Amino acid sequence: MIASYIRDVPDFPKPGIVFKDITPLLQSAEGLREAIDGLAEIASGLSFDVICGIESRGFIFGTALARQLDVGFIPIRKPGKLPWKTASESYELEYGSDTIEIHVDAAPDGQRVLLVDDLLATGGTMQAAWKLVEKIGGTPVACVCVIELAFLAGRERLGAAPVHSLIQY
Amino acid sequence: MIASYIRDVPDFPKPGIVFKDITPLLQSAEGLREAIDGLAEIASGLSFDVICGIESRGFIFGTALARQLDVGFIPIRKPGKLPWKTASESYELEYGSDTIEIHVDAAPDGQRVLLVDDLLATGGTMQAAWKLVEKIGGTPVACVCVIELAFLAGRERLGAAPVHSLIQY
Repeated sequence: MIASYIRDVPDFPKPGIVFKDITPLLQSAEGLREAIDGLAEIASGLSFDVICGIESRGFIFGTALARQLDVGFIPIRKPGKLPWKTASESYELEYGSDTIEIHVDAAPDGQRVLLVDDLLATGGTMQAAWKLVEKIGGTPVACVCVIELAFLAGRERLGAAPVHSLIQY
Repeated sequence: MIASYIRDVPDFPKPGIVFKDITPLLQSAEGLREAIDGLAEIASGLSFDVICGIESRGFIFGTALARQLDVGFIPIRKPGKLPWKTASESYELEYGSDTIEIHVDAAPDGQRVLLVDDLLATGGTMQAAWKLVEKIGGTPVACVCVIELAFLAGRERLGAAPVHSLIQY
């Protein structure tokens, strides 16, 4: 049960929020194995060429999954971090907005891309990632997360995009 | 030859710097496999309990390596990102300073920790990571990187710490 490795941290990052801390899961060989095996099981039902992870915690699960499935990995990063030509996409936050970037040559020839992140909350980041992959000519096929905060309805925001998660709160 | 997957990007992040872009290596299934297999071969000669990766690109190689070797993973992060009790360490940059953090319970009982990052440049970040692991009672055993910019002498800065890298420039 990978949920038993998740630690609730109250009032982080601000009062009233209970943060789902994945570090106990990561630092356990068994926890990490179960999480990546769980993601791999979801992925086995999907057709894709490459995995895309969103900075920073999407890198953790995305690359381990990519290696386990023997496919490549595309990083989506915060602005100014990728050195080559990028496409960018902005999205709304509770207060203000945020932007993410991808290399324009990251998914050539319409490659099918599986999006991976640690957490699906309101879905804003994942929606922007989906649009980014389309913007560079890739074909996003599904969103896969370790934790889904179902009460924030990110799945609805993502519309027709298939969403899969290992743990739902 | 994983070096053939590395793309030189001139004048990034500033004029006169030639940035070693690892994204072509990551997005190739063969490139990623060769890189992680190479790190695993280095790791096979070392004795450790857990792998620690430094945000953000150390997450990419660190977690994939941890999964491949069936050990756990400890993230070292930028300030304010880790939700639980942290220890922190600051280090000098060319202009100003930077700080990294680790959870205080990340390496209990003197666990032996292998430090992983994508790039060894001047060694400042890696040296701070080494000190952080010691600060929380862990036992750092070696530093492993994909790329070493040998002309920046990071290895010397790290003193007696064993340093291993896949590609040297």
